[in-house]
Amino acid sequence: MPEGLVDVSGRDEISRLRPPAEAALPADVRALAEANHRENWIRALSVNPDTARRFAAYFGGLFDPKAGRLPIRERELIAVVVSSANGCGLCEIHHTLALGDALGDAAKARRIALDHHLAPLTPREHALVDFAAKVTTAPKSIGPGDFDRLRSVGLDDADILEAIETSAWFNHTNRIFISLGVVPDDKYFAG
Amino acid sequence: MPEGLVDVSGRDEISRLRPPAEAALPADVRALAEANHRENWIRALSVNPDTARRFAAYFGGLFDPKAGRLPIRERELIAVVVSSANGCGLCEIHHTLALGDALGDAAKARRIALDHHLAPLTPREHALVDFAAKVTTAPKSIGPGDFDRLRSVGLDDADILEAIETSAWFNHTNRIFISLGVVPDDKYFAG
Amino acid sequence: MPEGLVDVSGRDEISRLRPPAEAALPADVRALAEANHRENWIRALSVNPDTARRFAAYFGGLFDPKAGRLPIRERELIAVVVSSANGCGLCEIHHTLALGDALGDAAKARRIALDHHLAPLTPREHALVDFAAKVTTAPKSIGPGDFDRLRSVGLDDADILEAIETSAWFNHTNRIFISLGVVPDDKYFAG
Amino acid sequence: MPEGLVDVSGRDEISRLRPPAEAALPADVRALAEANHRENWIRALSVNPDTARRFAAYFGGLFDPKAGRLPIRERELIAVVVSSANGCGLCEIHHTLALGDALGDAAKARRIALDHHLAPLTPREHALVDFAAKVTTAPKSIGPGDFDRLRSVGLDDADILEAIETSAWFNHTNRIFISLGVVPDDKYFAG
Amino acid sequence: MPEGLVDVSGRDEISRLRPPAEAALPADVRALAEANHRENWIRALSVNPDTARRFAAYFGGLFDPKAGRLPIRERELIAVVVSSANGCGLCEIHHTLALGDALGDAAKARRIALDHHLAPLTPREHALVDFAAKVTTAPKSIGPGDFDRLRSVGLDDADILEAIETSAWFNHTNRIFISLGVVPDDKYFAG
Amino acid sequence: MPEGLVDVSGRDEISRLRPPAEAALPADVRALAEANHRENWIRALSVNPDTARRFAAYFGGLFDPKAGRLPIRERELIAVVVSSANGCGLCEIHHTLALGDALGDAAKARRIALDHHLAPLTPREHALVDFAAKVTTAPKSIGPGDFDRLRSVGLDDADILEAIETSAWFNHTNRIFISLGVVPDDKYFAG
Repeated sequence: MPEGLVDVSGRDEISRLRPPAEAALPADVRALAEANHRENWIRALSVNPDTARRFAAYFGGLFDPKAGRLPIRERELIAVVVSSANGCGLCEIHHTLALGDALGDAAKARRIALDHHLAPLTPREHALVDFAAKVTTAPKSIGPGDFDRLRSVGLDDADILEAIETSAWFNHTNRIFISLGVVPDDKYFAG
Repeated sequence: MPEGLVDVSGRDEISRLRPPAEAALPADVRALAEANHRENWIRALSVNPDTARRFAAYFGGLFDPKAGRLPIRERELIAVVVSSANGCGLCEIHHTLALGDALGDAAKARRIALDHHLAPLTPREHALVDFAAKVTTAPKSIGPGDFDRLRSVGLDDADILEAIETSAWFNHTNRIFISLGVVPDDKYFAG
Repeated sequence: MPEGLVDVSGRDEISRLRPPAEAALPADVRALAEANHRENWIRALSVNPDTARRFAAYFGGLFDPKAGRLPIRERELIAVVVSSANGCGLCEIHHTLALGDALGDAAKARRIALDHHLAPLTPREHALVDFAAKVTTAPKSIGPGDFDRLRSVGLDDADILEAIETSAWFNHTNRIFISLGVVPDDKYFAG
Repeated sequence: MPEGLVDVSGRDEISRLRPPAEAALPADVRALAEANHRENWIRALSVNPDTARRFAAYFGGLFDPKAGRLPIRERELIAVVVSSANGCGLCEIHHTLALGDALGDAAKARRIALDHHLAPLTPREHALVDFAAKVTTAPKSIGPGDFDRLRSVGLDDADILEAIETSAWFNHTNRIFISLGVVPDDKYFAG
Repeated sequence: MPEGLVDVSGRDEISRLRPPAEAALPADVRALAEANHRENWIRALSVNPDTARRFAAYFGGLFDPKAGRLPIRERELIAVVVSSANGCGLCEIHHTLALGDALGDAAKARRIALDHHLAPLTPREHALVDFAAKVTTAPKSIGPGDFDRLRSVGLDDADILEAIETSAWFNHTNRIFISLGVVPDDKYFAG
Repeated sequence: MPEGLVDVSGRDEISRLRPPAEAALPADVRALAEANHRENWIRALSVNPDTARRFAAYFGGLFDPKAGRLPIRERELIAVVVSSANGCGLCEIHHTLALGDALGDAAKARRIALDHHLAPLTPREHALVDFAAKVTTAPKSIGPGDFDRLRSVGLDDADILEAIETSAWFNHTNRIFISLGVVPDDKYFAG
């Protein structure tokens, strides 16, 4: 098989590393898998239980819809744009659905995932999208002007740091799932 | 408005150039618009009627499902992969639907559009996908080995030329629609 | 032979795919070859007669010196700049000669092909050259400012679309000839 | 000031965002700052206390020298190589010192940070370095061969996932500190 | 005037820096200008007499046709390929003529300058061309295999070092003339 | 051994090409080696005595602290920034020490080598650093504005040419030492 492709011909191939049987997992990691509907991503991370634990704890905090500084729909917006820029299909499809839910507008979420240049964004969404892209692809070119633009659409310093953190985080998660080659679950492609 | 974004705030903004009123079009171009359901792409091209005519004639020939050498589903596969690599959201969503129809498998088409590395491709599909990507992003690195791989999955010389032509064509169309900033029609994001 | 090189040691090697004998071609494609002086490019395309037909029809329309919106010397200028940016030597040398004819100034055409940064361009030529380069290498960065600059040197909307179409077209043709590895005819290197 | 530069002319400028006074921090974040010797990185993160908390918890777990699967010196090796590839000077200098301590060989750590191509690496270190670089700069090109090479130098599946996680993590942290423009403390440049 | 363009509208504009009058030059630099037919490149360098002296001394030694290890036609081959890769039109046209003279085959030299992938190269020329390109665009990817290939076509260690030196040298000269924007003399475009 | 790595496991491996025994060198090249403390870089160049001679003559002139136009500390600054951008560890470490000496501030030199975005630069140093980086990575984008900025911090035309020459020169030397894989001497990593 050529490099860069995941062998998905067999029914159990969800990643380049074979997940352990659920019964073999520590109880807390089994609970994590259950809480996440046994989706492929959490099963793939359970190959190293500590990885699954760390990932779930950080992500659970950063994407808690009841906490945080930016509205959850803006954190989901960053998730979609960064994942699309990095080419992490699994993260992109997961967060496109979540963005649609958070916006109450699935069509707008799909437009953003497809090509944010063509989507009907507010000026604040524009600023966040451009910033997240820059953190992802050219962080060393960031300068005071980028922070000024975020301030001009209403972010304060702690908000800016959360925007940085959220953008940077998906450069972590995208690389984990791309490297593992985790295949999105069937439900993400239904009708 | 920052460079790279299309202003889609107004209801009639479908492109960076405003399409003429249909009544002002030459009869044959009006017929082209009708035959293509007045979709945004054909309206955007009608700004220069000769462009619309040339585009429709070439594309109509290359994607005639009853003619050609490669099965239409393989020509659509190339369309999706090249458009995704170039970031032409309009072409990607149009041909993802067409690929789903041609395959009789909308979910597989969506998986390919999202991330072909994670999609269940046959070896022949793999070879076509890799070749189309190379024609798009690194054509000068193509060599005899690339042609040998296509032959090994059943293509003859005329088939290979059609695969080249189809891959190259979307480097033309993608650049037209990206440069114009043509917004996909609402129907592509319904349901 | 290393990837990326065409074996031109034998006298009949004009492409990675061997052209059919002229007698084996359909009459209309044979006529196309004759009309184009049996040059290597048309012989190489005749491997798939439909490709040769589509290519000749589109190109014949777009580069008809008696039709079109931009003067033919500006369409040739775009051809040279895009082909040089993509590294398609065959297209570059063909259109450098045609540009010299259209300008009535072979030396200026050679200067443009060699390095347009050093050539004596008019402001309108500058604008077209910069636009064609952007369509080729960074189309997603195009924005309203790019269209404004074209308008400031006298292009209207239909002219702009023709400039886009011409720039995009050579991203198609360059990739066909680069992928095929078509060798320019000897006459382009005489004297 | 040009984009991309941090204004370090004033004595208190340690980041593009001004850290709060220590007295203004929540007690647990103040404790984090103390535990980390009030270094610039933890002060910079305290602009958003939740960011500081999440970061410290994840990093503390991943780099616990008494836990984990890969020896701590190999996790530090990955930290240095990824940070150098991303151009995060703050992370590079911190982890170069830590790598020197973990190896008991400061000179080797400095050689690796300077240019790992010229450093005396073991085959296992070579494999980890090459893998971390690929996760950082070209994750979508990763394939089964990359995993096979890691297995050939002794890693099992859970080890591989930890290597992926560690490599990916610094793509997160590097982007946070680059975006913030956090200046390394003076002590890293003494003697 | 947009960045990246040299203003060549005036008759004396041969560079972004105005060369001193010949009478104002030190005698030895005036002699250098005369010996080089007062071409634009030497006049442009004479803005700083020491630069002109150093450049002429190094280049005169490296390209002495009666000295050196590689035949002068191979040093000229490297000059053309590197200058073309870097986009230094001035260096490319100068050395294309010199290569034609050294080969006794102007057409072959023009084919190489236009697109070396399509030129009739010997295996030794292929190896030198590929090596020079790698030194120019991806030197850190050079490894033992690259040296082995050079040895397989007859180079010894001192020859290899001269090939490296010649390839690297044009990365120096190309950047000087590109940065200065030196315009090639009219004589290179006659006929 | 994978491409891109130098085998430094043996004690005498200082380069991909084995230096001749000192006794076998011509007297003048032996003297050069002695004058340069038999460091690895001069021994590596002595594989081709003419290369060593040319290199030492040019560099000796360009970096003569008693001659030249820019203060030697500014020539060393350019050396460090270009070598870091090109990833030539050997050149970077040599010139970081020399820059520290020239500045009388080893810590500042180390900060610049680590990440010049975070170092306390004067406006003139900023301008030189940005210019050297542009000559190295994007010379064709240089335009009148870049020269204007250098003039605004006090450089005249001959100074600008020396800044260009110095920046370009390290694109030569970096490529020689990277291609050869010359290992820095132990003394550069001591305590």
